[in-house]
Amino acid sequence: MTSLAWSFMTSFLTYETNKSVVVKSWSVGIINRLVQLMIMSYFVGYVFLYERAYQEADTAIESSVITKVKGFGKLNNVVMDVADYIYPPQGEGVFSIITKIITTHNQFQGTCSEIGDSFNCSTNADCAKHLSSVQANGIITGVCNTSCGSCEIEGWCPAENDQVQIEPMAEFVNFTIYIKNSIRFPLFSVTRGNFNSTINNCTNNKLTDPFCPIFRVGDILTEVNQNVTTLANNGGEIGIVIEWRCNLDRDVDLCVPSYSFIKLNAPFENNISKGYNFRFAKYYKTADGTDFRSLHKAYAVRFDVMVTGTARKFSLIPTVINVIAALTSIGMGTVVCDLVLLNCLKGAEQYKKKKFEEVSEAQILASITPSPGSQMSVRQGHDSCCDSGAISLSVNY
Amino acid sequence: MTSLAWSFMTSFLTYETNKSVVVKSWSVGIINRLVQLMIMSYFVGYVFLYERAYQEADTAIESSVITKVKGFGKLNNVVMDVADYIYPPQGEGVFSIITKIITTHNQFQGTCSEIGDSFNCSTNADCAKHLSSVQANGIITGVCNTSCGSCEIEGWCPAENDQVQIEPMAEFVNFTIYIKNSIRFPLFSVTRGNFNSTINNCTNNKLTDPFCPIFRVGDILTEVNQNVTTLANNGGEIGIVIEWRCNLDRDVDLCVPSYSFIKLNAPFENNISKGYNFRFAKYYKTADGTDFRSLHKAYAVRFDVMVTGTARKFSLIPTVINVIAALTSIGMGTVVCDLVLLNCLKGAEQYKKKKFEEVSEAQILASITPSPGSQMSVRQGHDSCCDSGAISLSVNY
Amino acid sequence: MTSLAWSFMTSFLTYETNKSVVVKSWSVGIINRLVQLMIMSYFVGYVFLYERAYQEADTAIESSVITKVKGFGKLNNVVMDVADYIYPPQGEGVFSIITKIITTHNQFQGTCSEIGDSFNCSTNADCAKHLSSVQANGIITGVCNTSCGSCEIEGWCPAENDQVQIEPMAEFVNFTIYIKNSIRFPLFSVTRGNFNSTINNCTNNKLTDPFCPIFRVGDILTEVNQNVTTLANNGGEIGIVIEWRCNLDRDVDLCVPSYSFIKLNAPFENNISKGYNFRFAKYYKTADGTDFRSLHKAYAVRFDVMVTGTARKFSLIPTVINVIAALTSIGMGTVVCDLVLLNCLKGAEQYKKKKFEEVSEAQILASITPSPGSQMSVRQGHDSCCDSGAISLSVNY
Repeated sequence: MTSLAWSFMTSFLTYETNKSVVVKSWSVGIINRLVQLMIMSYFVGYVFLYERAYQEADTAIESSVITKVKGFGKLNNVVMDVADYIYPPQGEGVFSIITKIITTHNQFQGTCSEIGDSFNCSTNADCAKHLSSVQANGIITGVCNTSCGSCEIEGWCPAENDQVQIEPMAEFVNFTIYIKNSIRFPLFSVTRGNFNSTINNCTNNKLTDPFCPIFRVGDILTEVNQNVTTLANNGGEIGIVIEWRCNLDRDVDLCVPSYSFIKLNAPFENNISKGYNFRFAKYYKTADGTDFRSLHKAYAVRFDVMVTGTARKFSLIPTVINVIAALTSIGMGTVVCDLVLLNCLKGAEQYKKKKFEEVSEAQILASITPSPGSQMSVRQGHDSCCDSGAISLSVNY
Repeated sequence: MTSLAWSFMTSFLTYETNKSVVVKSWSVGIINRLVQLMIMSYFVGYVFLYERAYQEADTAIESSVITKVKGFGKLNNVVMDVADYIYPPQGEGVFSIITKIITTHNQFQGTCSEIGDSFNCSTNADCAKHLSSVQANGIITGVCNTSCGSCEIEGWCPAENDQVQIEPMAEFVNFTIYIKNSIRFPLFSVTRGNFNSTINNCTNNKLTDPFCPIFRVGDILTEVNQNVTTLANNGGEIGIVIEWRCNLDRDVDLCVPSYSFIKLNAPFENNISKGYNFRFAKYYKTADGTDFRSLHKAYAVRFDVMVTGTARKFSLIPTVINVIAALTSIGMGTVVCDLVLLNCLKGAEQYKKKKFEEVSEAQILASITPSPGSQMSVRQGHDSCCDSGAISLSVNY
Repeated sequence: MTSLAWSFMTSFLTYETNKSVVVKSWSVGIINRLVQLMIMSYFVGYVFLYERAYQEADTAIESSVITKVKGFGKLNNVVMDVADYIYPPQGEGVFSIITKIITTHNQFQGTCSEIGDSFNCSTNADCAKHLSSVQANGIITGVCNTSCGSCEIEGWCPAENDQVQIEPMAEFVNFTIYIKNSIRFPLFSVTRGNFNSTINNCTNNKLTDPFCPIFRVGDILTEVNQNVTTLANNGGEIGIVIEWRCNLDRDVDLCVPSYSFIKLNAPFENNISKGYNFRFAKYYKTADGTDFRSLHKAYAVRFDVMVTGTARKFSLIPTVINVIAALTSIGMGTVVCDLVLLNCLKGAEQYKKKKFEEVSEAQILASITPSPGSQMSVRQGHDSCCDSGAISLSVNY
């Protein structure tokens, strides 16, 4: 029993190493070292230093954005403040600054003809036909007002005339947008804000004050090459991108945002750009309780604060994987050298003889007369399997 | 000095390669090539062609969504347009189309009893007890109106009666939703829009017009198997998923979105589905300046445009890692062949003798009499370490 | 022709395996097995069991959040319900509960002096100078009202006085927030909801009821150590983080969310915390149709429901990569053992002789007299290249 354990231990505690041929040749030696140098340069220079493959990345950034706009403008001889021109009012990450409003006052439920519809009817059937061709969603039936010869439809009347020319609120370029952004990288539990206590009364400027969280609308429009007059008239969509690129292996205070601005309309530029507008209504009651409303078609500049980010930090698993890849591929450099040594060098045949020991089945079979019992051979086979060391260990045990 | 440098160079510029045993046996040879073929098939077929492991992926998509709904409906004999039934009005990615409104008109601050509360009180204490059992948040005290025997609470009066039966706005199935989505993959700096200039007046259809950005509500509901009447009565939540799967190694014009629709309520189906509703108020003033409001309980279909995406592009690091893994595992195929060769083949013992050269500690120690000075042995040991080539290089230098 | 094919097959169907030296030495054997054990422990214990590197991760979670707040409060002697204090009303993932409102009633367009401006003017020029120094966005010109000596500006009058002391709505701590969150992991097509049918009338409690989707505001504030009085007076921002960590190799029912709360203001704490407020207006018409409004400066607690998550599932590619890395690095353990064997062990020189077979260029060149035709050597070189097996296969074929 103990002798069995002893022999097991003896065969287990062996060490198997490759038998090597060391070629003392300057030509192959130089090639060998050059190949190794190239592989190492790729891994050290590109993989580790440039791409920082020893780090783990977190792109699933959690973000909360609060905005606040300041400024006064004048539209239709009415002074507008924040409560008048910001939609929605709560200071969200997506908000619109209204630059022009076409208001249709005192709309009551009733029947009236649509503005700009020059169709002349004589019967209700005419109108049904006409209206279904004009509006795809024409579920509202029309009635022909025979006195004036136009189709009248049920709805809020008078109908909106959105072709009215109105001077937009030009002052919006001087408005300022304050952005408060707090983020978190859940993988690394790192929380950051987009400014710190030293920032006070400031205006963001790419060169002189890149961390100030207050942006002048005009500066943003200049940066995206947006024509201010067109924008004020038609509305538009601007993206404010806050980008966090954080290397958490360095001081976390270096994890600061960078701001950039994009025309969100850019991918659609081939189209006739129609700007951005939306409709909303204000509701009133007459003294006798009848509901009426004023309809507002608001042309607005919509700002979309988009937060994106990547944090990177040292992580053991990618590091080990890449180190192993580096060492393995240095080992693979021998493939190149072998090709040279065994094919191109003077004396290749001699090198081949040194490197390769041939055994053919015929030789082996000739040498075994008579063949040993298969049982014994299997048991010995097992023992020597243990000798095959590293890799076969993971197979046998 | 120069001779030292010379000998250093000589020992540095060597090349070490494994000594190999080449077995000329058809049986092992076939196994060897088959194992190699299987490993290569896995890597070439599955890893590289199917899973495209040579690419880097970016899932941190930046997205901006603008929506616009069109259509007219009729609710409670009032024609409703976009300004009446869309909440919020600005055209956000999450919006609701109101299908039914229960309005409580002319609410003033006062005291009144709650609708549907059949509790009979005789003292204020009765009411305090009753109310705290009815509402968990009952911070409002009640007073017993002894004339009618019911508890009255302070608040907006008259109280809302949300059990009123109202015919919902059935026309909403004909409304159309226009979706404008611009996205960006920050890792690859690729910006895309969900339609291009050739798209004009159209309606999205999975088969005939899959890229049209205008969707008919009814089509969406059909696709998610949603009962329209139930939905109009109770409200509901529909997800519009825009999925971007982009292979940036191909033409960027092939990077187009696909649309799909989901019932957001699906994970909660076991529950009695209560639909979706919310309350809002419109505020008025009487001629003498008293505030009153109308309370609206709105049943709505809430649409949530969710944008998801992955862009993939060739990247050197995963490619190299996977190529190295492929080559390494082809090398590991020898483990299988060794098992066969050294255990199962006829003449296994002979193969073993060819492959393994045994050295035992006893032999070695016997051969060294007298032992050389340890100092010299160490120095020589260092020299030969240099010979161990590729891997030991990274250890020694 | 057939003999050529035959010889090709013969040379193709060979098997090449490394020739090894098996050292039967306890000391090196123990070191060898220890090094292998350490490497295996790292891979099995850390990489596979702890870090679960055999799984693929999806962090691009799709999420839809609906909220509903319940409760009554009293502000300025007016009972407030949900329609009065929630902004926006639709039940979005980002919403504000108003705790204090400073209302400026009956504002009409006109000219008036700003509240709290003690500047005394005598000419309009005085005012222009003064106003441009006070407001950066001062596009509104001022007029000096010489009778009272103060600058008057155009706008909504009377001006807001936001220094009024108002008792905030203290009852908001008893409000409850119901959160409905449905998510999807697009990579694995797994959809989940944040509660199931067994959850009914409940209040979330970290210890006793962690899956209940109804939260009491007071409980949330306690958990983030927020002073309720300060918050009610100044407003604030609270994050409700819903975190999904799902191991999809296990039962999908174990994929449940965990809730946590954070002060979104935390990264800005160094600043004088100014809380959170926003302005909105309600619009009215007089009997003769003149527009007027009441301006509301609302101090609110803003809740931001942030959904984050990672799903992990077994995937072949990372598994294979890591297994290969494990096996390779076990093989690399020989580097350590070789260093010991060839340098530190007694009889190192003898081991070296066994392991390394030296060939110098001089020897080789001496042995070849006369040199064979280079053509023949190249052809033979090619044949033996085929013999070099595994790796050269991928190079030659």
